[in-house]
Amino acid sequence: MKKVGIAMIGYGGIGRVHAMAYRDIPFHYGLPADSFQVVGVATSRPETARAAAQEIGCEVWTADYRELLARPDVHAIDCCAPNYRHEEIVLAAAAAGKHIYCEKPLAMSVAEGQRMVEAVEKAGVKTQMTFNFRFFPAISRARQLIEAGFVGRVFSFRGRYHRASYIDPNKPLSWRLRKEVSGGGALFDLGAHVLDLIYFLLGDFSSVQATLETLIKERPLAAGSGEKGTVDVDDLALLHVRLADGTLGLVEASRMGTGATNDLQIEIFGDRGAIRFSLADPSFLEVYDVREPDQPFGGLRGFRKIEAAQRYAGQKSPDWTMAPGFVRCHAECQYQFLKAVADDTPAVPSMADGLKIQAVMEAAACSSDEGRWVDVAEVYHE
Amino acid sequence: MKKVGIAMIGYGGIGRVHAMAYRDIPFHYGLPADSFQVVGVATSRPETARAAAQEIGCEVWTADYRELLARPDVHAIDCCAPNYRHEEIVLAAAAAGKHIYCEKPLAMSVAEGQRMVEAVEKAGVKTQMTFNFRFFPAISRARQLIEAGFVGRVFSFRGRYHRASYIDPNKPLSWRLRKEVSGGGALFDLGAHVLDLIYFLLGDFSSVQATLETLIKERPLAAGSGEKGTVDVDDLALLHVRLADGTLGLVEASRMGTGATNDLQIEIFGDRGAIRFSLADPSFLEVYDVREPDQPFGGLRGFRKIEAAQRYAGQKSPDWTMAPGFVRCHAECQYQFLKAVADDTPAVPSMADGLKIQAVMEAAACSSDEGRWVDVAEVYHE
Amino acid sequence: MKKVGIAMIGYGGIGRVHAMAYRDIPFHYGLPADSFQVVGVATSRPETARAAAQEIGCEVWTADYRELLARPDVHAIDCCAPNYRHEEIVLAAAAAGKHIYCEKPLAMSVAEGQRMVEAVEKAGVKTQMTFNFRFFPAISRARQLIEAGFVGRVFSFRGRYHRASYIDPNKPLSWRLRKEVSGGGALFDLGAHVLDLIYFLLGDFSSVQATLETLIKERPLAAGSGEKGTVDVDDLALLHVRLADGTLGLVEASRMGTGATNDLQIEIFGDRGAIRFSLADPSFLEVYDVREPDQPFGGLRGFRKIEAAQRYAGQKSPDWTMAPGFVRCHAECQYQFLKAVADDTPAVPSMADGLKIQAVMEAAACSSDEGRWVDVAEVYHE
Amino acid sequence: MKKVGIAMIGYGGIGRVHAMAYRDIPFHYGLPADSFQVVGVATSRPETARAAAQEIGCEVWTADYRELLARPDVHAIDCCAPNYRHEEIVLAAAAAGKHIYCEKPLAMSVAEGQRMVEAVEKAGVKTQMTFNFRFFPAISRARQLIEAGFVGRVFSFRGRYHRASYIDPNKPLSWRLRKEVSGGGALFDLGAHVLDLIYFLLGDFSSVQATLETLIKERPLAAGSGEKGTVDVDDLALLHVRLADGTLGLVEASRMGTGATNDLQIEIFGDRGAIRFSLADPSFLEVYDVREPDQPFGGLRGFRKIEAAQRYAGQKSPDWTMAPGFVRCHAECQYQFLKAVADDTPAVPSMADGLKIQAVMEAAACSSDEGRWVDVAEVYHE
Repeated sequence: MKKVGIAMIGYGGIGRVHAMAYRDIPFHYGLPADSFQVVGVATSRPETARAAAQEIGCEVWTADYRELLARPDVHAIDCCAPNYRHEEIVLAAAAAGKHIYCEKPLAMSVAEGQRMVEAVEKAGVKTQMTFNFRFFPAISRARQLIEAGFVGRVFSFRGRYHRASYIDPNKPLSWRLRKEVSGGGALFDLGAHVLDLIYFLLGDFSSVQATLETLIKERPLAAGSGEKGTVDVDDLALLHVRLADGTLGLVEASRMGTGATNDLQIEIFGDRGAIRFSLADPSFLEVYDVREPDQPFGGLRGFRKIEAAQRYAGQKSPDWTMAPGFVRCHAECQYQFLKAVADDTPAVPSMADGLKIQAVMEAAACSSDEGRWVDVAEVYHE
Repeated sequence: MKKVGIAMIGYGGIGRVHAMAYRDIPFHYGLPADSFQVVGVATSRPETARAAAQEIGCEVWTADYRELLARPDVHAIDCCAPNYRHEEIVLAAAAAGKHIYCEKPLAMSVAEGQRMVEAVEKAGVKTQMTFNFRFFPAISRARQLIEAGFVGRVFSFRGRYHRASYIDPNKPLSWRLRKEVSGGGALFDLGAHVLDLIYFLLGDFSSVQATLETLIKERPLAAGSGEKGTVDVDDLALLHVRLADGTLGLVEASRMGTGATNDLQIEIFGDRGAIRFSLADPSFLEVYDVREPDQPFGGLRGFRKIEAAQRYAGQKSPDWTMAPGFVRCHAECQYQFLKAVADDTPAVPSMADGLKIQAVMEAAACSSDEGRWVDVAEVYHE
Repeated sequence: MKKVGIAMIGYGGIGRVHAMAYRDIPFHYGLPADSFQVVGVATSRPETARAAAQEIGCEVWTADYRELLARPDVHAIDCCAPNYRHEEIVLAAAAAGKHIYCEKPLAMSVAEGQRMVEAVEKAGVKTQMTFNFRFFPAISRARQLIEAGFVGRVFSFRGRYHRASYIDPNKPLSWRLRKEVSGGGALFDLGAHVLDLIYFLLGDFSSVQATLETLIKERPLAAGSGEKGTVDVDDLALLHVRLADGTLGLVEASRMGTGATNDLQIEIFGDRGAIRFSLADPSFLEVYDVREPDQPFGGLRGFRKIEAAQRYAGQKSPDWTMAPGFVRCHAECQYQFLKAVADDTPAVPSMADGLKIQAVMEAAACSSDEGRWVDVAEVYHE
Repeated sequence: MKKVGIAMIGYGGIGRVHAMAYRDIPFHYGLPADSFQVVGVATSRPETARAAAQEIGCEVWTADYRELLARPDVHAIDCCAPNYRHEEIVLAAAAAGKHIYCEKPLAMSVAEGQRMVEAVEKAGVKTQMTFNFRFFPAISRARQLIEAGFVGRVFSFRGRYHRASYIDPNKPLSWRLRKEVSGGGALFDLGAHVLDLIYFLLGDFSSVQATLETLIKERPLAAGSGEKGTVDVDDLALLHVRLADGTLGLVEASRMGTGATNDLQIEIFGDRGAIRFSLADPSFLEVYDVREPDQPFGGLRGFRKIEAAQRYAGQKSPDWTMAPGFVRCHAECQYQFLKAVADDTPAVPSMADGLKIQAVMEAAACSSDEGRWVDVAEVYHE
């Protein structure tokens, strides 16, 4: 693998996760320690940038990310900045000829996303979205099974991501609750992951009928503050989704799933088999085989819980085999990007893929406003 | 309890369940053996009626249910006839002054249902729907908790009933797949139960946005037959449901839930607590208490699986405590009806309640056809 | 089936379960209503006998069970009397030429049991123990799988039955806690079931090393009483068990399993497969197939939850398919006995089988006293 | 924290896990990158040592660990060498005044272990065992609950660790199966972890009655080889364990747990509460509270699944909150050691603690040989 220099842009909670994952990659994949390097980090203020650099163990830090784009030893950026800054950063990175690893959601809107995708395609740089959940071995295994015909004709599917992160009405109006910064609510934050998993496993979207709901409409501007502001994003999003091949399914995203920590579930029902995944048990996949023969034991049809890790190259590290963590799937996602950059092969899922998810979310918002099915094509023309 | 004489009208699979449940009631509730009696049974043909009588252990059998309505020792009918015969039977029973225990769904349509409800109200007879699932102790407990404020403000809810009963495309076109006989598909057959549970636990409905889908559009007319007929009912129904108080939730019914046997689940999310029920574990309720104090043990917040049986009068029988069965919840449902008849108290859920479920289902079908939210009031005026 | 007349002797909690199960048998197995009959019931006092008869729906009741043995229309007795009365009743029934259905444990001791088995064998009557759990379809299925070679060479096994029935030190000294009445504690009451399941699935016993423990050594003589009596039976029994074929495993019985309702679990580990059963989910068996091929889907090895009901003749009734209950497995057990009597075929498990369980329990008590492995042959010579 | 220099001695599978964990510690605990450092690594051969150094990112490597002991910038060793080398390495490290972090089991025998503990105590160096499982937040939480009186009087406990790692008879005779190298089998390898958890949660041991079994007695010397060697360690160990306070419980270790990956479970039953832990769900603890009040909701007694992470200082990192991995609990264990060294506070669990586990295992082997209860004091005098 050719050495890749990375500049991290943004370093909040998710930035730290990316940084930790970069550290582990050489171990997980048996790479030489110098196969890639986090060269520098940019945040909005010098003091946070400096602290980030110290934590990451890199020497360069700045409050102006353009300095990092100017460096020849930076080949790629990792964009962990808030959603509303993605467009500007991506356009600048593309102009500088840097490859781009970008947190989800891609953009604030389809219009923004389209400008971004055009820019990176014109610049010829590689891009990859942080759709980290699809890199759990169980999800890779699910896709392999589907491609091999295990499920057969898909009757329908369900995906959901519930968290309980906003059930407290006294929780202040964070950036995630302000549309001008986040672009959207539960659907953008949690639903994007579910939509990507459905897209990865079952293919492209055709139309959507959605109901988006803000359950707590006002929140304190700050912790303990008596002053309140309006929540203008959804806490709960319910979607009927129709795929390009006509398959109908359900997608849910909720920040008000009382009792849930990270309740992400996928279910796929087909005429030959069924598949279930739960983030609560991410090393396993549950599968049901309709074609299970009756002999020699008189039939053993039933959901079985198959171990999904340690079956593919690159999965032999300890944390895949015993309770793979959140950081571990980020490491896999980042490794695939680094490998694509080093080997000059396509990176997947690209920003173009991210734009498709953006389009479904925008169609969903439109559907919720207008109370009707909305074709993805109404909001996004490829 | 005053002695109640019952006439069973219809005796298919569900009729046998009712008959078995009647047998067990004296045991479960400590009643004298002669507190009620199945007097007779009517089916469509003399030979099936005779066999039914023998199995039930009653002396009267007939292929003309009107004979049973004419008997003074029959005080109530138990209507297990196919859906398309409900109206006729109920109108005749009401005219004869008999109380009516009626299998779900109430009717083929809201129009039919309205005529039926008018007739029974005019006749002043008691009616009760076989919404048996609400009689599981866990569901009674859920309602008690909700009434006591355990859940607090309801954020949202989900209900689903998945079976895999029709995933085989060679399964013939049974009566359940023909609209003229059944009135509807997965929604009528499975969804009615889920809707009743939501109604029982959370209250009345306001509007619905639904997608109904027929996944296998043609089936053999008979087993092994080359000749095919059209399936004109839904295999899968996805509903966004809005309650009268504005609460939004999801309801699903599917006959194509590959791998599922009887996957009925209810989830309710509130600002003070959450509740989950699964038919796979019907003796228990899972509850999450947001107000759980942090002392003395530093906080023990988490879903807990509470045993729901043996907490109410009438639950001390063996089959509530160790894996209560399907027949057991029918016994409870029937006992409540018998008790209402004997004591002259209101029977619940009545046909008027059944009509509300009918109305949501009709609104859902309309919504699916027109691709929009439909108010229940559009199809049903109380 | 030839008509069989049954006399119930003893009618406490378990007697009611048997009575309820008799009522359901014609339904479950499609028998004519007159194929068998509970003719009469005997309890220790006339007033309880009369109430029992009313509940059962039989005409004969008595406080002297010998009256029932004298009746020619009684072909079999169902012995639900306390353990310490089993010997006397069984000897009298055998002398009267009656077939015997007997609750577990067989006897107070191996010596008693041997006298009972000799008597019934000499009398040529059929006997069957109420080892009801082995009649759950999932256990029948487990045995079928084992016989078909699914598990292969058995490496080891585990069985446990935990209840929390005696964790309260203020619970009074009931008959179950007095050795002179019950014969033993957790091991006799709960362990007997586990031992029978192991015996049924894996075969005969060879030796045992056990620790029996009384955790609460004194209890009030009656509820609220300040006077205390000594508990002289075990609350907890831990056994290492060696089978005749050398296989080693664990058996546990506990009345002090805090939080447990009926936590009965069986696990069998073999070189070709593994099997797990839990009473919490009695319709299913979990199986793991070591020989699962890697093709066509790259290997789907994992525990699978197979539905065990509705695979055998006689299982088509509703309560097998949806959460089979405690009463249901008693019905199957009783039906097998009635069938053996009617058809003059061997009844299984017989009292001779019950004696084997008795012998392991007596060897366990001896092992616990002496702190060493005890051969079953030391306490019981066949 | 004072800077700590570490020398790794031994670098097989578990050495890599330790190395990966060291990398993550600064992130997890917010430490400066230079707060500690892996200075060098020793393995048995120069080429493996060199590769290890490259993977770790340290500059010093050697095939003679004494070179590392001679370095002043090495303050502590991390002993990941095979069990049979522990004594020699520990004695040398103690003589060199180095602190010692040591993989389990401590030694090949109690005699060895006693010599080691004497040496380190005389040298005044800090020692810590790699009993990593006790550092899962759920286990820390369990201990906190027990100390706070949640469980009350302990009735009994169970612990088990099942793997299926040796069910294939063609798996060759690895070092783990040769007593002269490993010192013991399933009990040493898996049982040691369970015993440490019981010790950590419930206290010291008094006596043991055990059965150790070798299920596959001969194995190929190498993969595919026709030549076979004798397995002289246990595949399966069943223990009745009595604690110093008289509490009785069960401990199991098995390498022949067909279908199990890492099935480690702990259950504790008390008069006030019960606690369950499963490694399959290591972020959660299941607890049952007997004292749960009946008001205000009529009683909500039941096992509840409490989230155990993110409740203590130092747990705010991503991999505790979403499926903490195997590496993560090693990081916590190592961090506690580094902290003790830097702050000059006692390290726990020390080698003296490790010796207690060793003593129970030796008593268990003796008990299995002699078929009787063996006091720990018979094999180990403190």
